[in-house]
Amino acid sequence: MTGDLSGTRIAIVGCGLIGLSWAALFRHYGADVTLWDPDAAARAAAEDRMIHPLAQLRELTQGPENAGSVSVTADLAEALKGAALIQENAPEDLSLKRGLYREIEALADPQAVLASSTSALTWSDLAPGLADPGRLITAHPFNPPHLVPLVELYGTDPAGLDRAEGIYRAADRVPVRLKKDATGHIANRLASALWREAVHIVAEGIADVAEVDMALVHGPGLRWSVLGAHMAYHLGGGSGGIEGYLAHLGPSQERRWSTLGTPSLTDAVQAALIEGVLRAAEGRDILTLEAARDAGLIAALKARRMSEDI
Amino acid sequence: MTGDLSGTRIAIVGCGLIGLSWAALFRHYGADVTLWDPDAAARAAAEDRMIHPLAQLRELTQGPENAGSVSVTADLAEALKGAALIQENAPEDLSLKRGLYREIEALADPQAVLASSTSALTWSDLAPGLADPGRLITAHPFNPPHLVPLVELYGTDPAGLDRAEGIYRAADRVPVRLKKDATGHIANRLASALWREAVHIVAEGIADVAEVDMALVHGPGLRWSVLGAHMAYHLGGGSGGIEGYLAHLGPSQERRWSTLGTPSLTDAVQAALIEGVLRAAEGRDILTLEAARDAGLIAALKARRMSEDI
Repeated sequence: MTGDLSGTRIAIVGCGLIGLSWAALFRHYGADVTLWDPDAAARAAAEDRMIHPLAQLRELTQGPENAGSVSVTADLAEALKGAALIQENAPEDLSLKRGLYREIEALADPQAVLASSTSALTWSDLAPGLADPGRLITAHPFNPPHLVPLVELYGTDPAGLDRAEGIYRAADRVPVRLKKDATGHIANRLASALWREAVHIVAEGIADVAEVDMALVHGPGLRWSVLGAHMAYHLGGGSGGIEGYLAHLGPSQERRWSTLGTPSLTDAVQAALIEGVLRAAEGRDILTLEAARDAGLIAALKARRMSEDI
Repeated sequence: MTGDLSGTRIAIVGCGLIGLSWAALFRHYGADVTLWDPDAAARAAAEDRMIHPLAQLRELTQGPENAGSVSVTADLAEALKGAALIQENAPEDLSLKRGLYREIEALADPQAVLASSTSALTWSDLAPGLADPGRLITAHPFNPPHLVPLVELYGTDPAGLDRAEGIYRAADRVPVRLKKDATGHIANRLASALWREAVHIVAEGIADVAEVDMALVHGPGLRWSVLGAHMAYHLGGGSGGIEGYLAHLGPSQERRWSTLGTPSLTDAVQAALIEGVLRAAEGRDILTLEAARDAGLIAALKARRMSEDI
């Protein structure tokens, strides 16, 4: 089903939450991972902070004990040496990333793909940081990266994209290529559009935060974990499929779109969201909620693996 | 975990896809279900068309063989006799439904709750059809109703809502109450908002249908099957939670909202959607795609049951 990354060297640039999640993932699938971070405290904590995601990956895959290796260094040249993939997870600061890219470009192997985990920036924002922009791709994971399979890719060099995609697939990710770069890639654009309406529903007093989230998780969220939004309308069109749906119900969708909200995050709306989220959390702190999320994701992913095996 | 509907009579008014899915669900959980439809062919086919959803429910719950009973009648009075819940699934035609409600009101037990599965209409649209509007609730399921747990409720009589909610919970549904009625309730408003952006992404050439759907299913869709949209931003705010998120990233969300698309379903956009969906379907017909959806839903729901059991 997935390949094996043994013998593949991967450099993780930036050891925050996302960087360490990537590191755990690649190590679990056999890669030799080198971590670099300019901050001594981040480097010192890195290996300990990988213990939990590595344990989750073992639970998920029932797979081999981490075949790969991990090392942490303060020397960027050492981190990049021999790396086929450089996964960059620096803060979302354009001049910081561009400065870092100049250093990386001078030190990396010519064949190495420089992949940015950026969420807020686009390839077009970042590419001017390089002498050879073709070396750069954006490779945006969805949090938490070691559990959620999606990686959104954009770049201009098909060969580099192919090499990166091969590595992600070997680590059991689902790479999706964009044809054109866009702020928020695909997933965060969809998430942002959905959240805008979720905020509108709270702002208008149609339902509270807990009820909106419950409706999502037990309704469309569940179905979207199995079936995409476009395909759902293909099935919603009966025997006429998407063509029938558009012909008969397209106009009513356009009318529905015109009634969707355009809320602002005013003080009153923010207060309603904060109060609603805290009520929905029922006293559970962030770590407890994260643990519940991860347990749910692992159960859902195990179910996928089983149904694929059939 | 769930109650038992044995001894409870439920009338299903309208034996289309949604009505029969409800019928299978209630029968599986032990109710005595009476089906009514004005169309003789629909009545004749009803029991056969329940075989498949009933089999899926047995697979999902590993539960008892259908303890309940089912009967089909052309006599509305007979269908409604003794029913605690009347689940109405007539076509989305206001005057048709209002006419039907007058007949039902004259025949039903005084304590019976009249629950409309309406997707396109609201309680306020429908209530004028009754002498006593308090008897009516909207109870919108998400397709397919026997698998997806969500039921969105709105009504004005708390006692009637309580009685209906008890029945839905006993059938392992997740009822969610709205504070105010709204076109599209919660779930279809969220779905519509997401699809608008999904159409925009295709219309703008950022990605094709298959890639948008793949990003959704392996990214936010998977996560929304576990964690609601509001709660996701609570976890996205780090230790500051939703309050920290709104303070630091609220303005960037508002900027993102302003870049979301407002597409029209022009001929060119419709053609791109149709072509993209057919490519994503890879030659599979609607029945095959529905079977894949249902298998995925059953696997996901089994995983939930297992993780809840822990």
